[in-house]
Amino acid sequence: MENEQLTAQAGDLAQLVGLSHKNFILRLTPGEQLQTHRGVLYHNDLIGKLWGSEVFSHLGNPFFLLQPALGELIREIRRTTQILYPKDIGFILITMGIGSGQHVLEAGTGSGAMTTALAFAVGPQGHITTYEMRPDIQQLAQKNLARLGLSDRVTFKLANIESGFDERGTDALFMDIPNPEDYIPQVRAALKPGGFFGCILPTLNQITRLLPALHRENFAFIEVCETILRYYKPVAERIRPTDRMVAHTGYLIFARPIIPAKVNQRIEPV
Amino acid sequence: MENEQLTAQAGDLAQLVGLSHKNFILRLTPGEQLQTHRGVLYHNDLIGKLWGSEVFSHLGNPFFLLQPALGELIREIRRTTQILYPKDIGFILITMGIGSGQHVLEAGTGSGAMTTALAFAVGPQGHITTYEMRPDIQQLAQKNLARLGLSDRVTFKLANIESGFDERGTDALFMDIPNPEDYIPQVRAALKPGGFFGCILPTLNQITRLLPALHRENFAFIEVCETILRYYKPVAERIRPTDRMVAHTGYLIFARPIIPAKVNQRIEPV
Amino acid sequence: MENEQLTAQAGDLAQLVGLSHKNFILRLTPGEQLQTHRGVLYHNDLIGKLWGSEVFSHLGNPFFLLQPALGELIREIRRTTQILYPKDIGFILITMGIGSGQHVLEAGTGSGAMTTALAFAVGPQGHITTYEMRPDIQQLAQKNLARLGLSDRVTFKLANIESGFDERGTDALFMDIPNPEDYIPQVRAALKPGGFFGCILPTLNQITRLLPALHRENFAFIEVCETILRYYKPVAERIRPTDRMVAHTGYLIFARPIIPAKVNQRIEPV
Amino acid sequence: MENEQLTAQAGDLAQLVGLSHKNFILRLTPGEQLQTHRGVLYHNDLIGKLWGSEVFSHLGNPFFLLQPALGELIREIRRTTQILYPKDIGFILITMGIGSGQHVLEAGTGSGAMTTALAFAVGPQGHITTYEMRPDIQQLAQKNLARLGLSDRVTFKLANIESGFDERGTDALFMDIPNPEDYIPQVRAALKPGGFFGCILPTLNQITRLLPALHRENFAFIEVCETILRYYKPVAERIRPTDRMVAHTGYLIFARPIIPAKVNQRIEPV
Repeated sequence: MENEQLTAQAGDLAQLVGLSHKNFILRLTPGEQLQTHRGVLYHNDLIGKLWGSEVFSHLGNPFFLLQPALGELIREIRRTTQILYPKDIGFILITMGIGSGQHVLEAGTGSGAMTTALAFAVGPQGHITTYEMRPDIQQLAQKNLARLGLSDRVTFKLANIESGFDERGTDALFMDIPNPEDYIPQVRAALKPGGFFGCILPTLNQITRLLPALHRENFAFIEVCETILRYYKPVAERIRPTDRMVAHTGYLIFARPIIPAKVNQRIEPV
Repeated sequence: MENEQLTAQAGDLAQLVGLSHKNFILRLTPGEQLQTHRGVLYHNDLIGKLWGSEVFSHLGNPFFLLQPALGELIREIRRTTQILYPKDIGFILITMGIGSGQHVLEAGTGSGAMTTALAFAVGPQGHITTYEMRPDIQQLAQKNLARLGLSDRVTFKLANIESGFDERGTDALFMDIPNPEDYIPQVRAALKPGGFFGCILPTLNQITRLLPALHRENFAFIEVCETILRYYKPVAERIRPTDRMVAHTGYLIFARPIIPAKVNQRIEPV
Repeated sequence: MENEQLTAQAGDLAQLVGLSHKNFILRLTPGEQLQTHRGVLYHNDLIGKLWGSEVFSHLGNPFFLLQPALGELIREIRRTTQILYPKDIGFILITMGIGSGQHVLEAGTGSGAMTTALAFAVGPQGHITTYEMRPDIQQLAQKNLARLGLSDRVTFKLANIESGFDERGTDALFMDIPNPEDYIPQVRAALKPGGFFGCILPTLNQITRLLPALHRENFAFIEVCETILRYYKPVAERIRPTDRMVAHTGYLIFARPIIPAKVNQRIEPV
Repeated sequence: MENEQLTAQAGDLAQLVGLSHKNFILRLTPGEQLQTHRGVLYHNDLIGKLWGSEVFSHLGNPFFLLQPALGELIREIRRTTQILYPKDIGFILITMGIGSGQHVLEAGTGSGAMTTALAFAVGPQGHITTYEMRPDIQQLAQKNLARLGLSDRVTFKLANIESGFDERGTDALFMDIPNPEDYIPQVRAALKPGGFFGCILPTLNQITRLLPALHRENFAFIEVCETILRYYKPVAERIRPTDRMVAHTGYLIFARPIIPAKVNQRIEPV
């Protein structure tokens, strides 16, 4: 993803976008070919082309050769199991202060969409440790991260977090599991005091269970929110929103473990 | 921002959050003190404390000692001139694929809120070059970036972009000026083919002017959208949205310069 | 629609709602039958049944026998050509103060969805006059209104409003045409001073053309807004919004013709 | 409200809107005067003026003389205790099919905002019966309705609905109380089968309690939704939403009592 060259090179991750925005993500490999329902594209023809170029399949159908953005990579992963959308991920990274060189924990690897975003955000000096209970799901995520060349920034652990995280003093911990309320003492133990906890929950009932668990463990600065993304038709003479939109992905909850001066002091919600 | 220690150190950026979430951002400096309307806090008392600790002013009023997240830092800068909110910045970074090690251009430095976010996102291996026409505004941004320790990742240029950017082959270019439609050829020249262009515009009339300018210069994959952030009261027994919310910050427009196979080929909007 | 009886009577408008909320609207007529893909229902079997009853087709498939609400009637009409949704209609009626006994003008009869709502709202003592240029569209609306038994509250005019409305001193005038900016003097002439003008426009470009036309003709109290309706899954254990929603129907614009004390006084927008 | 005259008459309800949209609602009475902080207006000077006219206080400050819309009347009432906004009321009336000549029940009269809307919608041939437990609140509502000349369409009952409603076979019943789940059998007994039940609840926790109560009493076609109203600045050259908006008033829940063919048949949610 750090390619600064103007032309596509063997080994680069590339995105081919055809008519109706149908798109393919591939790693350019000499000798290989991409089969599409609009014809075949040979990697050898793509290698060396300027990024942004229009190229053609053997049937003459046009495609554009692009470097995929993080949002595109995540969108592709999401197709399998995830509810995490770029609109949520971007806000989570900013709110949790996740950046270059950090060590971040994740619980609920899933298909690896959020793991990808985290690994991208912490850069080559940072590291992600991600927990998952199901081996098949973990393997899917490992494959997805390997394909994007991000595996060396990630440690995959196959474990039940009921017995706690191995890590201590972590900057930030993100959870994407249905019952975070059951593991807040474990989260507290793994996070640095004042660190960032975040999670996403699809239903409001789950929030009603999580909030008391956070209060019990002296988390404060609790925020509950949702992000909504609305697209417009990009036609200058008739600017208007699209007819339909995604109405809901999940509620985001953020909180920070604090150290009250007195034992058992209750931190009241705002 | 890459502090992995559990305790606050001299030189660290810190945030003190008092009652009613009133907060202060400061760099810890031995011998200095912070004056608040709820009493004085001595930096010497804060240095060495665990992050997340509750501390007290000389009048006995409580504050929590935290490491500020990127969102908080931006929020503070914004207070002066900016319309860029964390909800927009997070989505912009993801959509434009901005990450570790990239070189990103910005036009319209303003008070430096977006510059901060970009510098944070590209990490110590990346770099930001940002253009601004007004010297007083530029100095404000320089001061803001210096305070956050991010100055060495940023080149500030005092120039009118009408005569073009000095850079070529850039990964991504973000604009926060009222009339981006006047500089699209300059943007095209500075960006790598297939690179990422993004901007924010408060009114819909501005979008009607920008879209034709993008089409003329062979930008495609144009997206127009807005992000909306809705907060909920974090009270488990009475979950409901807050009574009022921010209704509008700006419309986001994204596009990528492409290279059509034929000269003067018109790329139609979706 | 004013049926106060508990049982379905011959001549009543009825709604049959089957599995998956598939529904049919019909006028109960002795001897007739309704053909559905889930079997036949005989009107004679429905007449005399309690409203709300579960009834069965000749194949044994269940349906509920209901009196249709205005929203349902409009939803059915809308299926043909309209963008007017109940969420917009309800807000329009309230904002324009439309109620029992009024005389209301409409321009752009269309398929008659808004005409139906207006006729319903003014009651048997009120009256609607609606203008349409295309005879085929007008006939569709006449058929829709007749079916609902509301024809005697409506005068249908086939005319181009360029030459003006025949009416004077009207309480309220609603327009659903693409270019209302071309007919504001005609609207002004037909409306009572201080009366209510309202219209719906799908794009923001149309609003930029309408606003100056309203200012030129001394309309004030101009409001531009949009209504958004978000549904939730009605499951007590997992309360959450539906995954997708209608993102846009149209922008609503309201204004009132006023009489400034001085000639040519310009009424400034807020 | 059914005034069809072009000029303001003694006895009419009038609205005076001054600078900054500051407004007053009054009933025109010969000899009376309106005191405002921008000067005095004499009713005698207003009577006989064209609606929509610009008039002046004794200090020379301008006001416009208008007939108030239902939305305005409700907005004024709401200032005291209510959460019901025109955006919700309009959608409720349409969804519950409330129109001319109907008999509608209300539980929770409050300050009478919804009672006003219901009385307006059913017209002179319809009737509203509204229940309230607190005498002081009821008196406030009675005063509000009397002022608007709608008292003869409303029966006010001072009673606890725990012992049930006196009415049977009602078309529609609207509730604005915090615990509707405690009175669903009483609602069922008062409503016509297939009739319309509606209520508004501020929190999601309340919905989780109401839904099972509705299922137990054989209500079906349950809908949970919220309406959102977004205003735009009406300036043609700079069309954009207002900076802030109302984010939440309440969730709307609608349901209809049905008669299943078999005893104890459970109607599943969609």
